[in-house]
Amino acid sequence: MSSLEGFFNPKSVVIVGASRTPGKIGYELLKIMVENSQRGMYKGKLYAVNPKSEESILGVPTFKSVTEIPDTPDLAVLVTPAKYTPLAMEDCGKKGIENIIIISGGFAEVGGEGTKLQEMLEEIRKKYDMRVIGPNCVGVVVPSTGIDTMFLPVEKDFLGKSYISSPRPKPGNISLSTQSGAFGVACLDYMHGEGIGLAKFVSYGNKLDVDEVDVLSYLKDDEETKVILIYAESIDRGREFLQLAKEVTKVKPIVVFKAGRTSAGARAASSHTAAMAGSDAVYDAAFRQAGIIRVRDMEELFDVAKALVMQPPAKGDRIAILTDGGGVGVMAADETEAIGLKLASFSEETMKNFEELKRERIIPPIAATANPVDLTGSATDDSFVRSMEILLRDNGVDGVIVLALHHVPGATAELPSKLARIARRYNKPVVAMDVGSSQYAREFRESFEVEGIPAYPEPERAVRAMKALVDYGKISLQS
Amino acid sequence: MSSLEGFFNPKSVVIVGASRTPGKIGYELLKIMVENSQRGMYKGKLYAVNPKSEESILGVPTFKSVTEIPDTPDLAVLVTPAKYTPLAMEDCGKKGIENIIIISGGFAEVGGEGTKLQEMLEEIRKKYDMRVIGPNCVGVVVPSTGIDTMFLPVEKDFLGKSYISSPRPKPGNISLSTQSGAFGVACLDYMHGEGIGLAKFVSYGNKLDVDEVDVLSYLKDDEETKVILIYAESIDRGREFLQLAKEVTKVKPIVVFKAGRTSAGARAASSHTAAMAGSDAVYDAAFRQAGIIRVRDMEELFDVAKALVMQPPAKGDRIAILTDGGGVGVMAADETEAIGLKLASFSEETMKNFEELKRERIIPPIAATANPVDLTGSATDDSFVRSMEILLRDNGVDGVIVLALHHVPGATAELPSKLARIARRYNKPVVAMDVGSSQYAREFRESFEVEGIPAYPEPERAVRAMKALVDYGKISLQS
Repeated sequence: MSSLEGFFNPKSVVIVGASRTPGKIGYELLKIMVENSQRGMYKGKLYAVNPKSEESILGVPTFKSVTEIPDTPDLAVLVTPAKYTPLAMEDCGKKGIENIIIISGGFAEVGGEGTKLQEMLEEIRKKYDMRVIGPNCVGVVVPSTGIDTMFLPVEKDFLGKSYISSPRPKPGNISLSTQSGAFGVACLDYMHGEGIGLAKFVSYGNKLDVDEVDVLSYLKDDEETKVILIYAESIDRGREFLQLAKEVTKVKPIVVFKAGRTSAGARAASSHTAAMAGSDAVYDAAFRQAGIIRVRDMEELFDVAKALVMQPPAKGDRIAILTDGGGVGVMAADETEAIGLKLASFSEETMKNFEELKRERIIPPIAATANPVDLTGSATDDSFVRSMEILLRDNGVDGVIVLALHHVPGATAELPSKLARIARRYNKPVVAMDVGSSQYAREFRESFEVEGIPAYPEPERAVRAMKALVDYGKISLQS
Repeated sequence: MSSLEGFFNPKSVVIVGASRTPGKIGYELLKIMVENSQRGMYKGKLYAVNPKSEESILGVPTFKSVTEIPDTPDLAVLVTPAKYTPLAMEDCGKKGIENIIIISGGFAEVGGEGTKLQEMLEEIRKKYDMRVIGPNCVGVVVPSTGIDTMFLPVEKDFLGKSYISSPRPKPGNISLSTQSGAFGVACLDYMHGEGIGLAKFVSYGNKLDVDEVDVLSYLKDDEETKVILIYAESIDRGREFLQLAKEVTKVKPIVVFKAGRTSAGARAASSHTAAMAGSDAVYDAAFRQAGIIRVRDMEELFDVAKALVMQPPAKGDRIAILTDGGGVGVMAADETEAIGLKLASFSEETMKNFEELKRERIIPPIAATANPVDLTGSATDDSFVRSMEILLRDNGVDGVIVLALHHVPGATAELPSKLARIARRYNKPVVAMDVGSSQYAREFRESFEVEGIPAYPEPERAVRAMKALVDYGKISLQS
């Protein structure tokens, strides 16, 4: 089968079921594409189809049927009512359009008549050998090419004011494939707020044709994608998925958030997407065998993604913790042991080097130089930087977690860039943490990330991010 | 022994070791108290002691010794160098000052000479029968009385700009007692950003005198305090603490974040606060027996605190989930079962009522009305409100988790207040959730909280908050 390139990077797109009425999906979706075109994000052609009138909508050339378009679009996005969708699809087939996204709902997910309509879609698809994403989905979002079929407007009224409601993330190297459209939309909102960049977003809804296996196969060779995230409630072509995943994880990490892990969750999933969730223990073992990293919630999904996209995998599981706050050091040590990482034992040379730093008063004499290294509230940029270098040099240390509470008087806004400069000289992963929601805390964490070091607001989250780098090291470095 | 009232609500305070040099603790601490005085937060008198000059500092009357003050302050805050601290304390004793906070470090935590100095402090304390918080601590923060000995300035330079760095929370009903000063400071930063109000904050450092038992005893009868949070790496007077906790938890909840739960964490704790962490399983059992709610990290500490301060405890563990997003419904169902809550089975009447709502087209015909109730992306304010009422009326439902993704077109900014109006009519806990970091998401969650419904950014966090309300119901309603 052909690649999915036409969905993610089409040269021309037609919106079938385009509307002149603000608030309607057929209007909002077209508007977003028009705006992306005006901004220069989408560089291809745009067409609209509306059966009632050929008057242009939002400046886009409009036709009564797909067949009347003077061009053959690479991609058709269908937002027609369910009962008219087979006809619209037949027209696309006649026109020779190869890639179809069906946003509309009212098919298998509602049963009865809807199931019959979906069967009709499948027949038409086969007849013309088309690729279909959907129906009942939000489709595709690609910031780098401006393709965006998520019909939710960016802004929404909040008690008379217009508020950012469904923002899109900036371009980046993390791709997300999701079975739940609503959760996908929520994830994009979260990614935007956290400053996490997106490569490709796909929500495939009822999976008439394109499913997680197809998406995975495409993302495997997609240069823009460095980390693949998958939200799934079920995986239908399990064997093929796992076989493919095993190959993919050798070149780029796959992180899966599989819901329906308990019997209550599985029942809920079956009513949500008619998914047979299957035994969770079986999934767990299969994922592990395929080299897939599994996470338990959305926060961890993106925490782990950030780490994998920014830092090299770890060559082992011996971790050093460097901090200016004893309490957060204890918390990180707890989590390190709890999730199966090891606190590194330092070499004699490292211990000697720390003693030397004490003598030179670069770190305070009361600093704890076992692991965690606690520089105390008297820490300065210099004490962090010099300690970091000692730790990265130690052959018994595979990665460093730096818990830098910005509140201490001696830490400055330059600490992140100073630490990053050292870290770049060693091929060992470094992750950072600072607690707080203040302006300083947020900027401090962002400074780390600008320098390529993922930063978290809680010690436990930093440790779990490091765990993913250790796990991916086992998969990618030892295979 | 006397109450700790003099620490939290003194009529006059002297800062011993006040300085004229910005950046020094003796300056920053005085400055914060002066500002709180100017703002009308602190209504009492202020004095400063500086051995070198009697010239007033920041407009505060300054003396060469405590003994020269024409008044007897209720509270002395000592920021003198360690070696001069016994002398300063002796002066306080002579003057008849009953409450002392010793911010200064350099005592037992550094060993050797420091340990001897701390022993001297203890002798003086006994001689004059004084109460002492510290040494080596950040002391006390009370937004309602303006007492604030946390010497970290609110603002700090960030690459030439002045950024909020160590903000203080607004007044509220949650109190925090912490063994780690640095973590305490970080918590206040987090609370401020999350809009969580503070009653009393205490960091007691080396625990020369006042410890968690004293603090707990005070907070038990403190009307401002509705929920007590404790961060501890060790609890020294374990038996007394647990006995007291058992009484306290009958009237207000105690939530403990006990670090040092693994052997790695315990070792780190022992080097941090010389704490003998003890077996974690023993702590776990003891906490449970005393009715203490235990959490695993800072996020959960405040998630749970918010729920306990805003919502009534649950009378049982049968929970209903109401959502407009199938995926988040599955996640919540997973977490519900994973942490030992039950998904409520709905009564026949409830099922009939939902069918009626479908007939009236108030909820979409494809809505799932088992538990979780999934109103789908076609949900409106009305479908949420009417469903909520049905669920709260069901005798088989002890609490409702509402997962309201704001992105769906039919949900408006008024949904939180509409849901709160219904919820207030029933004495059952309700917690809310919306995913996202967008302006709309943040305001939407805040709207819930303004209405007294705690709101979380992840389904699992909302479920764990509900768990605390179920656990506290078992403790407070069944005793």
